[in-house]
Amino acid sequence: MRANVYEANCPSRQILDRIGDTWSVLVVVMLAEGTHRYTELAKRIEGISPKMLTQTLRGLERDGLITRTVHPVVPPRVDYALTELGRSLYGLVEGLEKWAETHIEDVQSAREAYDTAQA
Amino acid sequence: MRANVYEANCPSRQILDRIGDTWSVLVVVMLAEGTHRYTELAKRIEGISPKMLTQTLRGLERDGLITRTVHPVVPPRVDYALTELGRSLYGLVEGLEKWAETHIEDVQSAREAYDTAQA
Repeated sequence: MRANVYEANCPSRQILDRIGDTWSVLVVVMLAEGTHRYTELAKRIEGISPKMLTQTLRGLERDGLITRTVHPVVPPRVDYALTELGRSLYGLVEGLEKWAETHIEDVQSAREAYDTAQA
Repeated sequence: MRANVYEANCPSRQILDRIGDTWSVLVVVMLAEGTHRYTELAKRIEGISPKMLTQTLRGLERDGLITRTVHPVVPPRVDYALTELGRSLYGLVEGLEKWAETHIEDVQSAREAYDTAQA
């Protein structure tokens, strides 16, 4: 069977949900800089709840995009890093991040025009 | 202020939510082929509810990524097309779609390995 994200039951649909997810994008872009600890991710990704960060990291780990390394020290230290598969995604998700940061004004003026036309 | 998606209140965060959204990706990639009617989008994007499709199209229109053209015919015909801004996003979202379709096996074997290790 040929993969097709337009089919509801194609596994690629679920994968697209994962890789386009905002929290996943922010984690992958940050780990492209290098290995980070849980606490560093939690601090930099403003507004993410501990529950959502844990869930995002677990999903990325399960999908083979990141590794989780527990160091047997006191207090425990947990490091996250990109896998090779995760690295292959980096250019794309960084592109999304940059697009979002670059086009704020375009999107905001479109919204103003839309809202004025609806009023 | 410099744009930064890692800041919870930066407008780029909301834009990233929009452009990474699976339904938005599927609409943008499909409209890159050419103008489509609502009914064509609804048919090809399997599993999307009419409510979710309408909401996705409205969001994309408000953000300046697509246009909505109502033709005064009976029955009414509504066409959607990419704007120039929407077109600038196409390469990225098509990249996500292709990545998802290409890496099904990699992700699935990572999941099996993860689930086995947890068991």
